[in-house]
Amino acid sequence: MLGVGQVPVQELWDKSLRELAVASIVAALEDAGQPAVEALYVGNMLGGELTGQAHLGALVADFAGLAGIEALRVEAAGASGGLAFRLGYLAVASGVHDIVLVTGVEKMTERLDPEVTAALALAHDGDFEMFPGATPAALAAMIMQRYIHEYGVARGDFAIFPLTSHQNAVHNPYAMYRKALTREFYDKAEMTAAPLNILDCSPTCDGAASVVLAPAQVARDLGRPVVRVSGSGVATDTIAVHDRADPLWLAAAARSAALAYQQAGKDPAEIDFFELYDDFSITAALALEACGFAARGQGVRFAHEAGIGLDGRLPICTMGGLKGRGNPDGATGVYQIVDVVNQLRGTAGANQLDCRVGMAQAIGGSGATVVTHILEVEK
Amino acid sequence: MLGVGQVPVQELWDKSLRELAVASIVAALEDAGQPAVEALYVGNMLGGELTGQAHLGALVADFAGLAGIEALRVEAAGASGGLAFRLGYLAVASGVHDIVLVTGVEKMTERLDPEVTAALALAHDGDFEMFPGATPAALAAMIMQRYIHEYGVARGDFAIFPLTSHQNAVHNPYAMYRKALTREFYDKAEMTAAPLNILDCSPTCDGAASVVLAPAQVARDLGRPVVRVSGSGVATDTIAVHDRADPLWLAAAARSAALAYQQAGKDPAEIDFFELYDDFSITAALALEACGFAARGQGVRFAHEAGIGLDGRLPICTMGGLKGRGNPDGATGVYQIVDVVNQLRGTAGANQLDCRVGMAQAIGGSGATVVTHILEVEK
Repeated sequence: MLGVGQVPVQELWDKSLRELAVASIVAALEDAGQPAVEALYVGNMLGGELTGQAHLGALVADFAGLAGIEALRVEAAGASGGLAFRLGYLAVASGVHDIVLVTGVEKMTERLDPEVTAALALAHDGDFEMFPGATPAALAAMIMQRYIHEYGVARGDFAIFPLTSHQNAVHNPYAMYRKALTREFYDKAEMTAAPLNILDCSPTCDGAASVVLAPAQVARDLGRPVVRVSGSGVATDTIAVHDRADPLWLAAAARSAALAYQQAGKDPAEIDFFELYDDFSITAALALEACGFAARGQGVRFAHEAGIGLDGRLPICTMGGLKGRGNPDGATGVYQIVDVVNQLRGTAGANQLDCRVGMAQAIGGSGATVVTHILEVEK
Repeated sequence: MLGVGQVPVQELWDKSLRELAVASIVAALEDAGQPAVEALYVGNMLGGELTGQAHLGALVADFAGLAGIEALRVEAAGASGGLAFRLGYLAVASGVHDIVLVTGVEKMTERLDPEVTAALALAHDGDFEMFPGATPAALAAMIMQRYIHEYGVARGDFAIFPLTSHQNAVHNPYAMYRKALTREFYDKAEMTAAPLNILDCSPTCDGAASVVLAPAQVARDLGRPVVRVSGSGVATDTIAVHDRADPLWLAAAARSAALAYQQAGKDPAEIDFFELYDDFSITAALALEACGFAARGQGVRFAHEAGIGLDGRLPICTMGGLKGRGNPDGATGVYQIVDVVNQLRGTAGANQLDCRVGMAQAIGGSGATVVTHILEVEK
């Protein structure tokens, strides 16, 4: 990783999709020392549906002053940004390109609900989940209800996830909600789809983040901190939750993490922090279990007992995660990588951890596509 | 290439997007001898906008019985299928995966105009071309008018492109228009946007095509014809036509072809046939020039003088191209590869050429993203 850039996540009504993407690219290229970029991979889910613009590889390359280079857009719902990063990593690691730019961008606030919810629902099975009326939040609520029933966890115990994310967002200047939550506030929050309340849901917002990738030797030669990808894995599951043998098991998260662990030669105990995908609180609990940090049904208990704050056994969402920083859908996976890079190279500000190995995981739909990366810093 | 599969291009009102994709996959896997697929790359432009379904990597993998494997969707307007193929090629060539499935799919007839035209317009610059009112056909018409003005070509001389494509489609059971055209019929055709008539425009339609990629040694070991990728290149240009120094020069087509020629160690004279992107007749002329088959301004004359039919110096669109076979947007780039493979391995039926090296080129927008592949058969 030669450089990272991000724009503050907000409802950015005065900025267009292309402006957001370009702002994050300008920041990343400045951070990287203005290398000559050879390719651009854009992670985006809803450019066509919400802003009237597809073909974002060429468009963003053009407006970033890079017309001519190889460019494309990749889409896998909420995993779009993570997959764009994987393509960038593979292009550099395999020697196809030396300097690659990865950009995640999403502009969601140009439309209002129910249009935005309908667009987000495109991540799920249109014919067999959405057409009968399940929204993304409704699916998460049913999974959460089943979890409470199966494992005897109290609804209020899920509060630890949004409370942790919001606490960490306070010191992140790029976060949408820089305000700590209290348990009392959580307990009184409005229900979105019982037992899921509004604080269990990550917000609709706008944002863009970019990363510049290069062979490790380039960073060494420039005397920069060498943060490298040591593990990368993608896996899929049935798109519809009702087709899974166990709706409480994120099989694709488990498989993609296993691929990343295997490539990196690491096990969960060697991961210093985990930028997990807290689109809903329940997803955070299930990701902890699927990735081997907690036993089945023990994700919520693990959060309480081992600790997931900055001083816990496994810090998660260290810059605010999807709940505190915001979840600009196709951009989120790249924001997660930016967070990992900042922690590993010691530029995470007030939230800085003492760390050497970080993991990021992005999830599309209800766990149908999952991409996991392990990054390490040479010290 | 271990196997190819395609569904007949039509207005397929009784088939859903996922059914089309899966039918082409079943055919390709059967042709390939049912290998164990490790990854799926889906090229698709408008699943979200026209059929209410995004996240097609996971969805198609799931309904093809492949849930679990790595999967993603790539989008670059009309170049989507070609870019999906490039990702598949790179994954196999770099050793990331051994057996990769590439699927292009598009379902455009679930909506009517003006919705379909508005969706296709997402390929162009939304803010600076489409918002002021230019449709894709209007842009092509302006380029064609300029070409006629600059190079003194008669409008009727463009007829050679649709006439050739339709003639070749007659014997392709997967083509939409299996009917030859006459020059008289062309001359009387209704204007879409003068000087572009309706026979200069490729049709809106539904379709899906798939290719199975594997290391060449796998095909050799199975005793199958070894068709391999010897050149692959992607390049971009400004997304808006008005930002180009010369609107009659497809810079990205020239650059992507140059990259492919360089990798393959070939020059244009060594290409036996060219599956070019005849979304509009004018694009065919410009592609012949950009790829070095004709001098600037000589594309139409080259077609008449050297010949582009099956017995010409450079056969193009040998199975009907976009005009005769149909142009199911994000699927088209994969159909082109299927056509090249069928020619190279001798399974092109009545249209079979005596050939060893074929080239395919897919174009997004008005030439903003272009991807070129050169394939060769070991004989």
